[in-house]
Order: sequence, then structure tokens, then C-alpha cells
Amino acid sequence: MIMNAEIITIGDEILIGQVVDSNSAWIAEALNGIGIRVVQITSISDTSDAITNAMDDACLRAKLVLLTGGLGPTSDDITKKTLTEYFGCQLVKNEEALEQITEFLTSRGVEMNEFNLSQAMVPDCCRVIPNRFGTAPGMWFQKEGIDIISMPGVPYEMKGMMRGTILPDLKKDYNLPFIIHKTILTQGIAESHLARLMKDYEAELPEDIKMAYLPSPGMVRLRFTTSGPDKKILENKLDKAVKKLNSIIPEYIVGTEDEKLEKSVGELLVEMGSTLSTAESCTGGSIASLITSVPGSSRYFTGSVIAYSNEIKKNILGVSSSNLEKHGAVSEAVIIEMVKGVRELYKTDYAIATSGIAGPEGGTDEKPVGTTWIAVASGKQVIVEKYQFGDHRNRNIRKATLTALNMLRKLILAEK
Amino acid sequence: MIMNAEIITIGDEILIGQVVDSNSAWIAEALNGIGIRVVQITSISDTSDAITNAMDDACLRAKLVLLTGGLGPTSDDITKKTLTEYFGCQLVKNEEALEQITEFLTSRGVEMNEFNLSQAMVPDCCRVIPNRFGTAPGMWFQKEGIDIISMPGVPYEMKGMMRGTILPDLKKDYNLPFIIHKTILTQGIAESHLARLMKDYEAELPEDIKMAYLPSPGMVRLRFTTSGPDKKILENKLDKAVKKLNSIIPEYIVGTEDEKLEKSVGELLVEMGSTLSTAESCTGGSIASLITSVPGSSRYFTGSVIAYSNEIKKNILGVSSSNLEKHGAVSEAVIIEMVKGVRELYKTDYAIATSGIAGPEGGTDEKPVGTTWIAVASGKQVIVEKYQFGDHRNRNIRKATLTALNMLRKLILAEK
Repeated sequence: MIMNAEIITIGDEILIGQVVDSNSAWIAEALNGIGIRVVQITSISDTSDAITNAMDDACLRAKLVLLTGGLGPTSDDITKKTLTEYFGCQLVKNEEALEQITEFLTSRGVEMNEFNLSQAMVPDCCRVIPNRFGTAPGMWFQKEGIDIISMPGVPYEMKGMMRGTILPDLKKDYNLPFIIHKTILTQGIAESHLARLMKDYEAELPEDIKMAYLPSPGMVRLRFTTSGPDKKILENKLDKAVKKLNSIIPEYIVGTEDEKLEKSVGELLVEMGSTLSTAESCTGGSIASLITSVPGSSRYFTGSVIAYSNEIKKNILGVSSSNLEKHGAVSEAVIIEMVKGVRELYKTDYAIATSGIAGPEGGTDEKPVGTTWIAVASGKQVIVEKYQFGDHRNRNIRKATLTALNMLRKLILAEK
Repeated sequence: MIMNAEIITIGDEILIGQVVDSNSAWIAEALNGIGIRVVQITSISDTSDAITNAMDDACLRAKLVLLTGGLGPTSDDITKKTLTEYFGCQLVKNEEALEQITEFLTSRGVEMNEFNLSQAMVPDCCRVIPNRFGTAPGMWFQKEGIDIISMPGVPYEMKGMMRGTILPDLKKDYNLPFIIHKTILTQGIAESHLARLMKDYEAELPEDIKMAYLPSPGMVRLRFTTSGPDKKILENKLDKAVKKLNSIIPEYIVGTEDEKLEKSVGELLVEMGSTLSTAESCTGGSIASLITSVPGSSRYFTGSVIAYSNEIKKNILGVSSSNLEKHGAVSEAVIIEMVKGVRELYKTDYAIATSGIAGPEGGTDEKPVGTTWIAVASGKQVIVEKYQFGDHRNRNIRKATLTALNMLRKLILAEK
């Protein structure tokens, strides 16, 4: 039997659009990973009425309710008080929580004050969930066979509790099935035309496999989902469905949604014992920043030259004045000099270079905003591509960053 | 009177964590902008039961219900069918919608098929909302004084409808007040200690101003919210509250939400006619990436040397081998050479340098994970600080990035 869960996020910052609720997606994925299905996510205001009503509703639909937010030390944090009243219990000083708070603050050289002290007060009808990354303890309540868990809204504190206590304990306490998803990426065909090609295929799909279309600019993802007690059987079932799809729309399938690009590129480089550097103009350090977000990236990444100005392109990367004058910084001639220049200067096996017009200004008729040259180089070859992205500065930077990493991935795979 | 709204997002991709619901934050901010308050955001599955129940609940609390998702041409899109039944009406071919779909497909050279044709079928009890960016028409229902609006989940299609029809029409149809937020950014003080300094201030804040603490890595944001019929009065009220805050915690305030740190630093540099470069080790391009996220940053930012390896620190930035050997890369001696090196190499007025142990590996007893040296330099001086951040790699990078930018801001202000 699949266990149904609901997530309730508490905080006006979500309701006014100041913060995007990324916690819920993380929690949902983590719960799916241990065989629990999320049936509703609800974001509500920091008021005790809203919390109480949302709890009542969720308990009608789910056996597990996870709350985030409103556990901070300040006056606008009312979740703990509301839950204490909701469950009809008392706030008492919890020695275990006090010890953790003291330890946490001491390790950071912060003095304990009365606001921190108040965080060690916990309802006497819940189990305390340790918080290794902050001062607000989590709370685990049980009521009429329903588990109700309250966590801080700060993402890394919440994730620490989920990983350290909640996920392992749920797995231990309940006999949970497996939920398996597989997502296929298609490119070069509109959703409606894909649906037409796949009409018979969809009709013949086993009933316990659910399929969904997820369109996004330039790409339609197809997600397959199934669940059951035997992981191996489920995986075989999905593999079979995907294999059959491969025979129907082979020309549109470009891959699966696997691990993050920056991580898989890093793993490839480690595997090859190779090194990487980047020369970034329009991406302004975004590629380097993504690469170095991966732990251990110093094993293969030596660094970058961020060459925002033409002077730096010339003086550091050795781009020729004549090419800059004749073709401009956003050109094939210059991107080739940039990628070769950084690869030589930083003495790496591979290199990436970007030069483009991120916008909103700087576009011309010939080179409108979004025009972007990307090059990747190895000792054997330089591959250059020109892209025309959109109008939006930060989306252009993001697209160029991911595209460049993917070009490098393909180059490494081809030379492997 | 403030109008209460709810947002319902339909789609399993959110409930399994495959997609982060960024639509709701955008819609909430847009509604706030015309004086409508969002009281709940609910994400549900693609089932007619879930949609019907969520609609029933939302109509009890709100006068405006906005739905996104489930309007595509494929079999898993069931919102239109469900709403047609919910309102007890019939699907009929809508000529206006058909014309728009035909035009949209023609402009993209895509052939119309039966899936697209089915999108021109619309319930006969709603007003059609034109979709300039896709094939799914929006639907505007009214029932017992409640407006219920269904939009596609594809962000740019949804945004097109909101901007083109929904926001202007809501403004026209209702006499809406103003909702004003102002967010102050503070840096260098923990939330609990900020709360302590601000205890009296909070108690004296006018009752119609709501204040909230929003902690995030390296920063605590303070959000002030008020609403009423006269925008000028509201703005004056918030300005007064912020001015008073300025006299209580001047050393911790680094900007406002509309005036992000990277933007205010950029404006300072433009004002001074000065230029900036960075030499980044542990931040790996994150500072450069943040600086170049600001449009027009090429006016003052020449670029960076990302020196992840010691070789690059030596060969490009001119850090001495003896200092690297004697003190290590994460040291005062090396950070000073880095900041001076990049400032000279890139010929800029100001420079920033970072060197630290981001983690999770690489820490020692003497220099545990989180140890970070940051330097900022002008022509007159070099300011160096050592920080002890936490255990978490990407949080450490983020903290070092914001702290470095703030150190530069203070240096520029001091020399101004």
C-alpha cells in the first residue's frame, strides 16, 4: 500500500511571491525515493488559523503531514506555539534541544541570548528532531495514526533533518513500496505531434504505468511512473516500455533525465584523469561557478579567465586585436582564440569559451541580444557553435552555461 | 477591502518534485502588484477528484481562484474536461480560439492535427482568454460572485495571459487597494541577535505594518508590508519605519531588495567611474557571476582570474611559491598577493580576492572547512578579513560571495 503524504509550507514570503517554494519539490522527491506519494502541497500564511485549518484538511487526506517554516526565534514565527495548542500540550524546556543549541552557537562563536533559549522550549507531546545546522529543533507528533512533522523552512536545516532522522525513521517504521520514475527527453517535435505518433503506444501501455507529457521551450519530456513492492520488476517494466518507445520515435529521443550535468562532466573528467579551464565572457563566471559547486572539483578544474572586457581578451588570453576589430568580440574567430588561449595559459586538457550578447542592451541587427558563440577544445580539436538564445539576460546566461557544459560532455565522450 | 485569492497548480510533476512551482510565486507577486492578496497556494494531482475538491475548498476562502496546468493537448491533460463538468456546461467549438490556434501554428510552420483541433473546444459557460504564445486557450468562469480562471502551466503562456488579459481586467473590474512591501537586507549579524537589537523597535512599529525576518545564507532580510487605498501614504509610512531602523542598526543594513548588493555595488562603481576585477579561489567564479548578472556590468567589471589551482595562483596572479609553501593557499600572505595581483593584471581601480576551504573535504585542525580569507583592494589600501563559515560547501561559497561584495561596498563608501 502506498502511503499518502502532504506538505504544508508556512510563510508569507511564498504567498507574496518573494520566495519560490523549492523546499516542497525537494521533500516530494525525497519521499518518492522511499515509496511515499505526495498528494497535495499547500502554502499558507503565518497565522494560527491558517495553520490549524490546513492541518485539519491534510489529516483527512494523508497519513503523513510535513510542515516547514515558522520555527525561527523571532516574533513572526508562530508554528511552534500553534502546534502546541493544536495538540493540547505544554511548552517545556527540552534539555537535549538546549544542549544542541548551545553546541551549535558555541561552534560558531555566537553568544546565546533569550531568543535562542526560547528555541529550547518544545511541546511535551512530541519527539524532538535534532537540528545539526541551526537552532530550531524539529518536532514529530503522532495523532490518530497520522504522523505530523514540523521542520524549519531554511532549506539546509530542513534537508539535514530529513536525511538524518525523518527519512530513515519512516523507512524503518513503515513497510513502504517503491515508486519509480523514468523521464525521456525528446527534441524537435511539438507536443501535439508527439501525442499523435504515440497514440497507439499510449493505449497499449500497461495500466500500472502512468505516462505524462512535460513540454518546455525546445523540448518535451515524457515521464513514466510505476510503483510496487519489487524494485527490480518495476525497473524492468519501465525499461521495456522505454525500449518500445525507442522503436517508435527513435529520431526524437535525445536522452534521459539523469544526474546533473556539472556532476556527470566532473565524473567524466576524473575518469579520464583530465583537467579543464574556462574562458568566459557573456557567462561571466557562471560556468566556473557551476563546475566548482561540485565537491572535489579541484581535482580537474584549474580555473578560468573571465574576460569581460576586450582588453582582458587581448592581454590575458592573447586574442588578436585584428580579429576583435574585424569581427567583434562575439565572433567565431575570437571564440576560437579564447578557447585556445585559456587552454594553453592554464595548461589543461580541455577548455570551454563563451562570448555572446546576454542583453538587455548591446544587441545589433546583425548580432541581436541572445547571439552566443561557444567553443570547446581538446588537444585534438576545437568545436565551435553559434546559438541564438532569447531576450532575457539571466536565462541567456543559464542557457549558454548548460549548453557549453553539454558540448564539453559530448566532446569528451567522442574522444573517450 | 482587500480581495483574497488562491492559486491552484495542477500536475504530478510538482508533486513528485520533478518541477519546482515557480509559476505561483510569479502570479502571487503580480496579484500583489494590483492589490490582491494570495491566502493559499495549493498543488494537486492531475485527477478530476483532486481538482474538484481543491476548487470547492478554495471557493470557501477566496473571491478569486487561479488555476494553472492540465490544458495541453494530450491524454494526461484533464483540467478542461473537469471544469466543464464542474460548472455543468458543454464543450463547444470556439471560433475565436480556433482562429488563434490556426494562426499560432501557421506562424511556426507546424501542421494542425486533431489534438490541436480539440484545443478549440471550450466550455460554453466561460469567457475565452487569448493565448498569444501557445495553443491552449485560457478560461474565465464566474460563479456566485467568485472569479475562477484557468491557465496553461507553461510559464510564458501563463504570463502572457496574466499580462495581456487577467491583470488589466481585474484592475478594471474591482476597486483594489495597494499592497506595499519593502525589504531591507542585513549582513553580518545572526537572526536572534538582530531580533534582540530590534525588540523595542518592533514593539513600537505601527500595527498596520507587518514585519518578518527572512534568514538566508550570509544574510537576514527584513520585510515590511502594509496596505491601504493611498499608495503615497503607504510608501511614506514604510519609508519612515525604515528610516527609524537605519538609526538602530546602521552597520548591518547593506541594501534593499530592489537594490540588491550586486546592483548597489555596481551603481557605486558607475558613480565613481571605477572598475573592478576579482581573483577567486574558493568562490570559483560565484562573485563574478553575481556581478555580471546585473545588466550593464561591463561598464565597470573587466573580469576575473579564477585560480582554483596553486599553479594558476603562481603563474597568472604572481603569488610567490615561498608564501604558498610557508603559509598555504588559504592564508593572509597569499590573499594579499592575489588581490594585488589581479588588480595589477586587470588594471582596475578595485579588486576582490577569496581563498578558503569550501568543503566538504580539505579541512585540517588548523584550517577547518569554512576557513576563508577575503581581501578587497583599492589604489590606497588592502583590507583583509578571515572568516569561519560552516560545513556546507555551497553555503560557504554563497556567504563568501556576499561578504566579499559587502567588504568592497564598505571600502568604496569609505573612500568616496
